Amino acid sequence: MIRFGAALAAAWLALGGAAQAQPITLERFGSFHVGGRQVVLSGQPVREYLPTAGSVPLRIDPNGVHMVGQMYARFMVPAPQRGAAPLMLWHGAYLTGVTWETTPDGRPGWDEFFLRRGWATYVTDAVERGRSGAAMVPEIYAPPLHLPAQNPWERFRIGTGAGSYATRSVLPGNQFPTEQYEAFTRQVVARYLGTDADVLAAYVALLERVGPSVVIAHSQGGALAWQVAQRRPDLFRALVLIEPAGIGVAAEAAKLKDIPQLLVYGDYVEQDPRWSVIRRNARGFAAAIQAAGGTVEDVDLPGRGIPGNSHMLMMDRNSDAVAALVQGWLARQGLWR
Amino acid sequence: MIRFGAALAAAWLALGGAAQAQPITLERFGSFHVGGRQVVLSGQPVREYLPTAGSVPLRIDPNGVHMVGQMYARFMVPAPQRGAAPLMLWHGAYLTGVTWETTPDGRPGWDEFFLRRGWATYVTDAVERGRSGAAMVPEIYAPPLHLPAQNPWERFRIGTGAGSYATRSVLPGNQFPTEQYEAFTRQVVARYLGTDADVLAAYVALLERVGPSVVIAHSQGGALAWQVAQRRPDLFRALVLIEPAGIGVAAEAAKLKDIPQLLVYGDYVEQDPRWSVIRRNARGFAAAIQAAGGTVEDVDLPGRGIPGNSHMLMMDRNSDAVAALVQGWLARQGLWR
Repeated sequence: MIRFGAALAAAWLALGGAAQAQPITLERFGSFHVGGRQVVLSGQPVREYLPTAGSVPLRIDPNGVHMVGQMYARFMVPAPQRGAAPLMLWHGAYLTGVTWETTPDGRPGWDEFFLRRGWATYVTDAVERGRSGAAMVPEIYAPPLHLPAQNPWERFRIGTGAGSYATRSVLPGNQFPTEQYEAFTRQVVARYLGTDADVLAAYVALLERVGPSVVIAHSQGGALAWQVAQRRPDLFRALVLIEPAGIGVAAEAAKLKDIPQLLVYGDYVEQDPRWSVIRRNARGFAAAIQAAGGTVEDVDLPGRGIPGNSHMLMMDRNSDAVAALVQGWLARQGLWR
Repeated sequence: MIRFGAALAAAWLALGGAAQAQPITLERFGSFHVGGRQVVLSGQPVREYLPTAGSVPLRIDPNGVHMVGQMYARFMVPAPQRGAAPLMLWHGAYLTGVTWETTPDGRPGWDEFFLRRGWATYVTDAVERGRSGAAMVPEIYAPPLHLPAQNPWERFRIGTGAGSYATRSVLPGNQFPTEQYEAFTRQVVARYLGTDADVLAAYVALLERVGPSVVIAHSQGGALAWQVAQRRPDLFRALVLIEPAGIGVAAEAAKLKDIPQLLVYGDYVEQDPRWSVIRRNARGFAAAIQAAGGTVEDVDLPGRGIPGNSHMLMMDRNSDAVAALVQGWLARQGLWR
């Protein structure tokens, strides 16, 4: 296993620091929706309201065909391209593709980091969230859950656990830009349960449309990415799992044996009652993939000289250092020219 | 009043057609959220669930501080810039900023049209929609409405009115790319009522952050834009109202007298029982602005030699011709170098 040293990370940071001050040329950019299924509703009450002053009363009859389970994707293709495949950025629960855009404290996010290194990037909003839209409640989806501000602070290894939001207690050396924590809470959206089938189908539809890709997936998105890859391993050139919050189908780990995989967790994991178990489970799953002949490189960031990362490491102050580690690994897989 | 001829439109189309095949250089790009307010919830039940295989049961306590009413904005700044101010694109009801991105049939949308002509563009998702996120129902917001597939077909002057979705009857000469109507329905999201105060406050916060701007607003967004402009006329360099679905505060029309305004409606308006009234109301409001000394140029697209436009004219096959008309008007206001 090759180790990433602080010198390599510093070199990448220097490149990033210089590159980000320069204009960037795009070959093309755009967005689209993929997937979805049509559901017919009947027996629902009609609603009528006046939309705004100067309008005319509007009668909304919800009975009929509803498109649900579709997914939004935005892409930017740089010129020249250096990535050997499209690079997808899949976010986690209660969040949208904004995860990968500008950080809460205004620095370039991972979308821009990889775009500036010549990757065609695809940022999605998982089904039910953001621009993908959500289905009617409770007729099609069950009522969603909403996170109050204290939840990510206490659960994402920013604060010192339960009760720490009230006192704003921060884990020692934590890299999350806590002075912009409120800005981060503006990104949080509702999460529907029981939608996994729609989510998985839409990710497959996305990869079928774009073609075999490098997928970088975070948290819930990591668990989903493993499951998508088990359905269609042919559509993955590489899979980077950033703090996956779950695993794939344990009995089918062998289906992942031909996909190069990188598993990354940040700091404070062992002392956290949930994340320590989640990582142990992920490592067990990775071991099953390796037992089947696959390759999963397991990175503990503090062990690589990158301490202080919260669960939202693509927003942490050292987000570029973590991205550089991922970039270096992708280059060593021969996926970057 | 200067009239836009077919020749001028054709000239712009030629420029657009050539430019769109070329790479584009960005000075910078990114996204952020603005606005919002904090609401404290209490007495709500705690929910617990297993997020995914390999995870650990998750306990969500919704009691605490919730950020609501914030708004998402994405920006792209071209190099070189030719616009004299940032250009904002505000969408309509049941939609998100996707309105302005790639059209349902895969052509560049208005965001790209104006970006390629040197405007720094800002695309937003109105409060409660898309990446802006929605508040808890029913504790903070009232339950939303969802549009079935037939609603825009029959209401947005694509089909021949009530009942036309079942037969897919299309208004003669209609420019909407109906073969991709299903793709359009994937963009549709829920709409919450009673959120106008949050929406207006967030648009003001956006303009305060970015500075005085050119605002292009569609449908519900047009009515809201008039209301925002009445609150803060100093933050508008020009206002382009694309089929506004309502008006501002009638008694305060004079507040808009110093903002150059363009009012655009498409085809089939007079024969439509709702849109004919809506346009009549908008023209009445425009007359009040003019009576106070303001300038509102009123464009009936068929009367300018651009027939067949639905309510979604930024997605219609001739969307570039309509955009060119807007661009020409902005240039004549001295806002384009």
